[in-house]
Amino acid sequence: MKAAVLGTSGYTGLILLRLLTDHPHVEDLIPVSSSQPGKQISELDPGIGEATMAKGISTAGQTISIKQAEALNPDVVFACLPHLKSAGLCEPFFGKSVVIDLSADFRIKDPDIFEAAYGAPVPNPGLLKKAVYGLAEWYPEAVKTADIIANPGCYPTASLLPLLPPAKEGLINGVCTINAISGISGAGKKLKEYLLFCERLENACAYSPGTSHRHTPEIQQEISMVNEDVRIMFTPHLAPLKRGMTTTITVPLTKKITAEDIRDLFLSYYRDCMFIKLKKKIPNTRDVWGSNRCDIFWQVEGDILMLFSAIDNLIKGASGQAVQNMNIRFGFPENDGLALHNQL
Amino acid sequence: MKAAVLGTSGYTGLILLRLLTDHPHVEDLIPVSSSQPGKQISELDPGIGEATMAKGISTAGQTISIKQAEALNPDVVFACLPHLKSAGLCEPFFGKSVVIDLSADFRIKDPDIFEAAYGAPVPNPGLLKKAVYGLAEWYPEAVKTADIIANPGCYPTASLLPLLPPAKEGLINGVCTINAISGISGAGKKLKEYLLFCERLENACAYSPGTSHRHTPEIQQEISMVNEDVRIMFTPHLAPLKRGMTTTITVPLTKKITAEDIRDLFLSYYRDCMFIKLKKKIPNTRDVWGSNRCDIFWQVEGDILMLFSAIDNLIKGASGQAVQNMNIRFGFPENDGLALHNQL
Amino acid sequence: MKAAVLGTSGYTGLILLRLLTDHPHVEDLIPVSSSQPGKQISELDPGIGEATMAKGISTAGQTISIKQAEALNPDVVFACLPHLKSAGLCEPFFGKSVVIDLSADFRIKDPDIFEAAYGAPVPNPGLLKKAVYGLAEWYPEAVKTADIIANPGCYPTASLLPLLPPAKEGLINGVCTINAISGISGAGKKLKEYLLFCERLENACAYSPGTSHRHTPEIQQEISMVNEDVRIMFTPHLAPLKRGMTTTITVPLTKKITAEDIRDLFLSYYRDCMFIKLKKKIPNTRDVWGSNRCDIFWQVEGDILMLFSAIDNLIKGASGQAVQNMNIRFGFPENDGLALHNQL
Amino acid sequence: MKAAVLGTSGYTGLILLRLLTDHPHVEDLIPVSSSQPGKQISELDPGIGEATMAKGISTAGQTISIKQAEALNPDVVFACLPHLKSAGLCEPFFGKSVVIDLSADFRIKDPDIFEAAYGAPVPNPGLLKKAVYGLAEWYPEAVKTADIIANPGCYPTASLLPLLPPAKEGLINGVCTINAISGISGAGKKLKEYLLFCERLENACAYSPGTSHRHTPEIQQEISMVNEDVRIMFTPHLAPLKRGMTTTITVPLTKKITAEDIRDLFLSYYRDCMFIKLKKKIPNTRDVWGSNRCDIFWQVEGDILMLFSAIDNLIKGASGQAVQNMNIRFGFPENDGLALHNQL
Repeated sequence: MKAAVLGTSGYTGLILLRLLTDHPHVEDLIPVSSSQPGKQISELDPGIGEATMAKGISTAGQTISIKQAEALNPDVVFACLPHLKSAGLCEPFFGKSVVIDLSADFRIKDPDIFEAAYGAPVPNPGLLKKAVYGLAEWYPEAVKTADIIANPGCYPTASLLPLLPPAKEGLINGVCTINAISGISGAGKKLKEYLLFCERLENACAYSPGTSHRHTPEIQQEISMVNEDVRIMFTPHLAPLKRGMTTTITVPLTKKITAEDIRDLFLSYYRDCMFIKLKKKIPNTRDVWGSNRCDIFWQVEGDILMLFSAIDNLIKGASGQAVQNMNIRFGFPENDGLALHNQL
Repeated sequence: MKAAVLGTSGYTGLILLRLLTDHPHVEDLIPVSSSQPGKQISELDPGIGEATMAKGISTAGQTISIKQAEALNPDVVFACLPHLKSAGLCEPFFGKSVVIDLSADFRIKDPDIFEAAYGAPVPNPGLLKKAVYGLAEWYPEAVKTADIIANPGCYPTASLLPLLPPAKEGLINGVCTINAISGISGAGKKLKEYLLFCERLENACAYSPGTSHRHTPEIQQEISMVNEDVRIMFTPHLAPLKRGMTTTITVPLTKKITAEDIRDLFLSYYRDCMFIKLKKKIPNTRDVWGSNRCDIFWQVEGDILMLFSAIDNLIKGASGQAVQNMNIRFGFPENDGLALHNQL
Repeated sequence: MKAAVLGTSGYTGLILLRLLTDHPHVEDLIPVSSSQPGKQISELDPGIGEATMAKGISTAGQTISIKQAEALNPDVVFACLPHLKSAGLCEPFFGKSVVIDLSADFRIKDPDIFEAAYGAPVPNPGLLKKAVYGLAEWYPEAVKTADIIANPGCYPTASLLPLLPPAKEGLINGVCTINAISGISGAGKKLKEYLLFCERLENACAYSPGTSHRHTPEIQQEISMVNEDVRIMFTPHLAPLKRGMTTTITVPLTKKITAEDIRDLFLSYYRDCMFIKLKKKIPNTRDVWGSNRCDIFWQVEGDILMLFSAIDNLIKGASGQAVQNMNIRFGFPENDGLALHNQL
Repeated sequence: MKAAVLGTSGYTGLILLRLLTDHPHVEDLIPVSSSQPGKQISELDPGIGEATMAKGISTAGQTISIKQAEALNPDVVFACLPHLKSAGLCEPFFGKSVVIDLSADFRIKDPDIFEAAYGAPVPNPGLLKKAVYGLAEWYPEAVKTADIIANPGCYPTASLLPLLPPAKEGLINGVCTINAISGISGAGKKLKEYLLFCERLENACAYSPGTSHRHTPEIQQEISMVNEDVRIMFTPHLAPLKRGMTTTITVPLTKKITAEDIRDLFLSYYRDCMFIKLKKKIPNTRDVWGSNRCDIFWQVEGDILMLFSAIDNLIKGASGQAVQNMNIRFGFPENDGLALHNQL
C-alpha cells in the first residue's frame, strides 16, 4: 500500500505523516511538497525521527514533487492543500489514485453556495458529483467505493455527529444555536499577527458569527439533507489551546422526550461506531486529544435539548478522519493507525 | 477614608488590595483575615511590594482579625468571603460601615430561589431588602445611598450589560442562548483536581449547562425585572485562561431592526458610562484584561440579534466593579483606582 | 504476557496504561489501585476508551487490589507509587515478577545518601544490590537479566545521557552547571496550591537549587561512577508546560576539543541507540513530546562545552523508559509500544 | 510635560503608552508612528480606551509622523524602534529633547564589539560618548543629567542587578554561568513561524548560547567595568509565557562568605532602591508581572554563590525602566506611573 501526502509543512500534513508512519498497511509513505521538494522531513519537522522516516519511505526521507509522486502511482493521495488550489493540484491523481481531499474544494454540493462562501467558483465542478462527503459515521457505504473523498471540516464534524440523529428523527424544529470553541491549530500555520503566541495566550473571543463562517453552509447542507426545517446559527470561538474542539448546541425540541430516549436514539445510530463515545458527563477536549474519537453528551431542559461534543480538531476533525476514510475505503480495520484513547 | 478587605488570600481579595493601594482616596487600607490574622501581606502574596503596603496600612502590613477591624471603624468593608458565610461574618459592620459583598448572599431577592441555587436558606433575609444589586451601570442611583451593596457575579455582569437594553425595549421574545467562556480564576483558589495546571492546560469544556449554574437565577432575576417574556438558557465554559470572560448571546428579535438601531439603543443607555465601550469588532478578552471595562459588540442576522461582550472576570466581574461601586457610593470619580485600558 | 500497573491514578500510571494498551506483546493488562480498587478505568481517566480497555484487560476494565493482582501472576509489574512506599507495596511480587519501580526506592546505592535526600531510611536495603539502575542506554546488559529495575528520575535521565560520555572519557574537570526546565506534570497530580492553573500560567521560577533537590545525589552517583573528578551544581526550573524537559549544561573541558570530536564521541556511545537523536540545532521540548527520544545537541565555546538535551518527562523521563526497560528485559524490539516521533 | 513615543505598534511602545497615560506629570502624550501615521491608537490596540487616550493627547488619539512630532517639541522622546534604525530616526530630537532609546544603538561603548554583535557599524558613533547606560540603580547620577539614555536590554537588566554587587566587591573569579528564561514578548511582535502560538505552547528551549546572543557583550561590558576578572557564559531560554524573565546565575566565589554577608552586601547597594526587593525565597516571574521591580534571592553552596532574579521583561526590562529613567532625569518621584506590586 502506497500513500502520498500532498502538503507536508502544515499541521494536518505533518500529523498525517506521523499517523501513516505507524499504520500497519502503509508500506510506502510518500511525502510531497510542491513548494519545497527535496527537503528532509526531519528538517521540516524535528519531531519526526529520522529512523522512522527512513524505514517506510521510498524517497529517502525527502519530500518530492507532485510530478515525481505521480510516477510512483500511489494507491491513495491525501491532499493537505489550501482551498481553491487543492482540486487543481490533485488533477494528476484523479482516476488513478483514491484522493482524500482535506480542503473544502469538494465539500459543497451547490456551486453557488461554494462561490458565496469561498469567493471563487468551485474549482472542479465536473467531479463534484463523484466526490463523497467523508463524514465517516454517516456515509460509510458511499466511502467504501468512493474515488474522491471530501474530508469534512472540523466544525462540521463536531457539530453534525451530535446533531444529525435528532434532526433526522424530526425532533428538531427551528433554529439550533451552535457555539464551538477551537484550538488555534484550526487556523493552520499562517504567519498572521493574530496567531502569534503573545496575541493568543490569555485571550479568548468569538469570530465570524452567524452566516459569516465558511463552515456554516457546510453544516447547513448536511443538516438540510436529513431535515429541511432545521436552521443553524453557528458561532466559533478561539481559546488558547493548540488542539481541541468542543461544541455546545441548543436545540428546540418538537416534542417531549427524555434523556433516556436520546440515549436510545444515539445508540441506534452509533452502537457500532468505535470512534463515537456516549458519555455520562460533558466531555473535555483533552479526553480526546490525539484520539480519533468524538465524545458526545446531552441534557434535556424542558423543551430544549442541549448537545455537547468534543473532538481533536487535527485528528477526528482532519487527519484522523482522513485515515479512517482510507481504512473504510480499503477494507482495513477502522482504527488501524488511529488511537481510541487520548495522548494528553 | 478607611477601607477594610475581608478575605485577603483569595484572588478577588488580593486584587482588591492592589486596586485600593493605588486608590487616591483610600488613606488607610485594612487587610482582614479571619483564618490567618497576623500574617504579612507580602508573604500571602509575594507580588505585593512591602514598600507599598507599609505606606497606607495602619496594621504594619499585616492581616488583622474581624474583631480588630471592627474597632478601626472602616468607612467601607469589602467582603471577599464564601457564599453562605459572608453575610454572617459581615454582621459587625452592618449599620456602621458601607458593606460591599462580593459573595452571592445578598444578590437573589427571592429566598426560595436562593435556597434552590445555593442549597441552604438565605443567610440574612432581614437585610435582603436593604441590599442594592450593584450592577453599577444599571443602579447607580440606588448605589449612591446603599449601605449594603451586593456585587454582581461575573457571568451576570458580562451577560446583563449587553442584554438588558434590548430586553427593556421589548426587542426580545423567547429564549436567549447565553454561552460564556471564563478564565479559571473564576473558580477561586481551591485545591481541587480539576483546577490543577495539568488538568486545564490544553483543555476546554462546557459545564453546569441550562438551569444548573448558580448564576442562571441571578441573570434571570435581573432580566425578568425589565422584561417578563425573556427566558435564558445559559451555558458557561472553561478555557485555559487565568482571567477573562466573553459571552456570545443569541437573541430572537420581536421586530425588524438594524445594527444602527441597536447602536443608538446602546448609546441611549450607555453614552455616559466610561466603562462600557461599544466596539466595531467582536471584543477579545485581552482587550479588557486588568481593565474595568465591558466591551460590547452586536450583529443582526435576520430575525436574530447576536450580542458579544468581554470583561476581566476579576475586575469588572468582581473586584473592579466593587471599587466602582465604592466610588459611586462615596462620590469619587467613577474611575478612581480603576484602569480604562488593559494591562496585557 | 501479563503486565500489572500499580498506581493508576497518577500521571505516570495513566500514561503507562495507554502505552501498554498499544503494546504488541502485552495481551493482558492489569490496572491495580490499592486506594481505589473496583474503579472503572474510563472513570479515572475519561481519555481512555472503554473499547480499548475492555479488549486486553482481564479485570473488565476495572482496577483491582494488589492482593488480586498477585493472584494473577503478572510477568512484569510497573510500580507508579510514592517514594518510600513503593518498595513495600511491591513486596508480594519480588522473586515472582520482574518489578520496574518508577519511584526512587531502589535508585540510590548508598543508604546514607538515600536517607539524607528522602528523610527516611531506604525501605528495602536487602534488595538494593539486586536492583539495576535502568538508564536504558547505559546498562542494557544488566537490565536484560534484572529482576528489579530502578527506573531513573526524569532530571537524571535528561542530564546523564548527554553528560556521561564526555565524563567517562575524562574530558570534564570540575563543576558542571546543570540547569533544567521541567513541565509541571513532573510534580505529579498533587493538590497543592502551587500546582493550580492560576498559580503556574504566565509564571516561571527556579526551585530547590544546588544540593537541595533529590535528583542531585542520583545524578552525582552516576557521574561519579564514571569520573570521580566531576561535581555537579544542579538547578531545576518550572515553566508553564504540562510535559517536557530540557537541560542546559555548562561543562569545563580538560583539553581542547572540537564539536566534531564530540560528535564522534557521542556516535561511539549512541550509534545504535534508536531513542538518542544527535541534533544539528538545540532541541525543543516539543520535538520529543510523546516520544521516548532524548535529543542532544552540543557546542564548544573555547574551554567550555555546552550540552543541551530534551525529553518528554513522562515518557523517556518515566513511563516510556519503563516500557523500554521491559522491552530490553523480555527481548522485545526496543521500540515496541513506544513512539520514535512526537505527538504534538 | 510632553512625551513622545516613537514606534507605537510593538509591545514596548504600547506598554509605554499605557504607562505614560497614567503618569501624573505627562500632560501631553504624543504617539508617533513613521510607518502608520494618522492611525487611531484604539485601532492599533483595542485594549486602550478611547476615553483615556482622548484625554491627554494633543493628536486626537491618532499617531503622527516624526516630522509632526518634532514640531511639537516634546520634552522627552521614547524610541521603541528597531536596532540600527533607532539612532537615525531619533536624529531630529537630539539636542532638543531628552532621548530615551530602547534599542541597542547606544548601549555598546566599543564600536567593534557593536559591529560584531549587530552585523553593521554603530549608527551614530559621534554621540556614543554622550549616551548614558540607563541601568537606573547603577547610574542614577549620570542619568540625572543625560540627554541620551541607552535603556538596557531585558537580559542585561535581570543579570546585572544581582551580579554587579558581588563582582564589584571582588567576590567573583572566573566564569559565571547565567541561565535565563524569557517570556515570548521579548522577541517582539514579529511574523515569524517560531513565534506562532502553536509553535510555542507546550514548548521550551535554549537558544543562542554562549557568545552568540547579542546581550552577551552588553552584560560583559558592564561586568568588566567593575571587575576585569569575571567572564560570563550566558544562555537564554524561551518558555511559554507572554511576559516574565528569570535568571539563575552560578558564581565561583573568591573567598568564604555567608548568605548573611551577601544580604549585607546587597543592602549596602540597594537599601534605597524602591524597585529592588531582596527576597527570602526564589522569586517567581509572576511576583513582578506588570511591576517595575527586580526581585533578588541568593544561596551559598560551599565555594559557589547562586543568584536568582525575576523581572517583567516588558516593564523593568524595557518600558518601565525607561519611565524610571525619565523620572530620575526630570526629578519626579522614581515610581511615578510605575507599579511596585504585580498585576497578575
